[in-house]
Amino acid sequence: MDERVREHAEVLVDWSARVEEGDNVVLSVGPDAHELAVAVAEALGERGANLLATYGSGEITRAYLRAHDGDFDEDPAHELALVENADVYLSLGGGRNTSATADVPGEMRRAHRSARTGIRETRLDTRWVSTVHPTRSLAQQATMAYEEYQDFAYSAILRDWESLADEMARMKDLLDEGSEVRLVSAGTDLTMRIEGRTAVNSAASVAYDSHNLPSGEVFTAPYATEGEVTFDVPMTLHGESVRNVRLEFEAGEVVDYEAEQGEAVIGEILETDDGARRLGELGIGMNRGIDRYTDNILFDEKMGDTIHLALGRAYDANLPEGESGNDSAVHVDLITDVSEDSRLEIDGDVVQRNGRFRWE
Amino acid sequence: MDERVREHAEVLVDWSARVEEGDNVVLSVGPDAHELAVAVAEALGERGANLLATYGSGEITRAYLRAHDGDFDEDPAHELALVENADVYLSLGGGRNTSATADVPGEMRRAHRSARTGIRETRLDTRWVSTVHPTRSLAQQATMAYEEYQDFAYSAILRDWESLADEMARMKDLLDEGSEVRLVSAGTDLTMRIEGRTAVNSAASVAYDSHNLPSGEVFTAPYATEGEVTFDVPMTLHGESVRNVRLEFEAGEVVDYEAEQGEAVIGEILETDDGARRLGELGIGMNRGIDRYTDNILFDEKMGDTIHLALGRAYDANLPEGESGNDSAVHVDLITDVSEDSRLEIDGDVVQRNGRFRWE
Repeated sequence: MDERVREHAEVLVDWSARVEEGDNVVLSVGPDAHELAVAVAEALGERGANLLATYGSGEITRAYLRAHDGDFDEDPAHELALVENADVYLSLGGGRNTSATADVPGEMRRAHRSARTGIRETRLDTRWVSTVHPTRSLAQQATMAYEEYQDFAYSAILRDWESLADEMARMKDLLDEGSEVRLVSAGTDLTMRIEGRTAVNSAASVAYDSHNLPSGEVFTAPYATEGEVTFDVPMTLHGESVRNVRLEFEAGEVVDYEAEQGEAVIGEILETDDGARRLGELGIGMNRGIDRYTDNILFDEKMGDTIHLALGRAYDANLPEGESGNDSAVHVDLITDVSEDSRLEIDGDVVQRNGRFRWE
Repeated sequence: MDERVREHAEVLVDWSARVEEGDNVVLSVGPDAHELAVAVAEALGERGANLLATYGSGEITRAYLRAHDGDFDEDPAHELALVENADVYLSLGGGRNTSATADVPGEMRRAHRSARTGIRETRLDTRWVSTVHPTRSLAQQATMAYEEYQDFAYSAILRDWESLADEMARMKDLLDEGSEVRLVSAGTDLTMRIEGRTAVNSAASVAYDSHNLPSGEVFTAPYATEGEVTFDVPMTLHGESVRNVRLEFEAGEVVDYEAEQGEAVIGEILETDDGARRLGELGIGMNRGIDRYTDNILFDEKMGDTIHLALGRAYDANLPEGESGNDSAVHVDLITDVSEDSRLEIDGDVVQRNGRFRWE
């Protein structure tokens, strides 16, 4: 076994999920994540945790959903009881085809998802962490060779998380103390209010309220956005390529938009509901192990020297207790490169210029 | 997909497990049983059952057990809650290496098994069925080519189960009404009492108290065995090849034994405990879709024109309510070919001669 697989498992179990002796762990295994699952099982055995492995296969989901009449039972008792009695829920993504469920009708997907709200919310109450095993199908999605992709993925995952968490804490402090953020870059001059909001130091660990491995971003929930922004990192949204999206904001709302490619998809997203025209997230990518776009949001939005903004729903963790932020059925991240001709200001002070932070 | 995979799934779901709308189903998927799992998911979706897939990997079990200190928590709550809330438990065997757990110390295996007694017993209270997907590793174990093995396995699994159940019912009636069985064959002349015992018509369906697919045997619990028997179907027991085992019985107990190969293993088994020297099962193989030995007890003991006897524990289903039969920590099946120069008598009447049943 590639030693990096074992290191990945150890980061996941110890740093991310903080597994302890006696923990009841559910390990969801993608069809091509077998090798990582073996390494995680070894780590769980060493720590004296209790392991139940589930099988997370898009092809099984597709077959089941396409055959079903759509009238789903709500929160089936056996699965609900499993997650209710779990302390930790580790999800190892990695299938053989990232389009495995492409021909499942959207309404079937939504009905299934909606019938499982209780299971999903119960799972979110565990120490849950999602990661991916670098598979050939993910390499293909990233338009990379397999070994090249493995190097890329492990460089993102096997970081000195403790030291990155310390660095990100500086950014969190600046955002927590600040009132207004201004982002200036090619095609971008945007101001957002952040006063009263709390930033999350997303350091790939449940101890930091961070549930993705890799992570490496600091994010908050902005409001009262004014100005224009251009997102130059390409993405796939709803199966469509999207490039160079430009949004114009007035009084917190998108009043104009255009895109070199995928303009119709952006239009659809903006029309979802009122909240879809406002921002739910401002995120600062700080994982310099991620140095290229791979069409996978788990990696892309944490890329070093990028900033992302999300249209739609804000996260509760960014809001004062009891206050509700921007609400929407969507949360769509869009990313811009800030490595050149860029600056990020908080209350008039430059905190990042051409990718370099003030403390670097 | 090979149409036989879908047929296998339908037999499993409808005939074997009697799945109905709203059933909570646990589907345990072996690493190479993915294709069958997809077909089963489709059938479960069609019937409106609720599906949770678990991952039954020997390599994960091996990694976990070898890393653990052996002090296992008893019946971990998440797994226990899952099976307590399941109506149906389908196990799809099929790994990539039938020796995947070969280097797990026996004491570790036993400690893990013993800590999970409650989970196991709860699972046995569901409508549980075990089957296998014909994989390359099972083909290898059977010393067969892959396509040859697929043909073999589907010929055993895709039977007219209703009509085989009717035929087996005749044999069950004869055994239930009979008092004494005599088996005569090359190197064999054995009498066993069966009075007061109830035969099981093992027709691969929970409706017949039969939990293996394929099945196709009628079995009861004999006692007061006298005479000698030779088992000429080769087997692997505890990893050792065993051939031409000869046992001699007096007053129900083995008093002498020999084997052309594997004699030491037979000796070890007989010395396990007192019950290991007595018979726990007499089974009549009636699945003529199984026409050759494949070193897999799921298939071998149901082979048409064979009879098997088990040393050790008897099944409760064969005993009068409240009565306990032969008790032992082991249940080891040994098989003899009865297709030639053989006869099976019940109370002096020949019911099978050279493989042919009386009604044929």
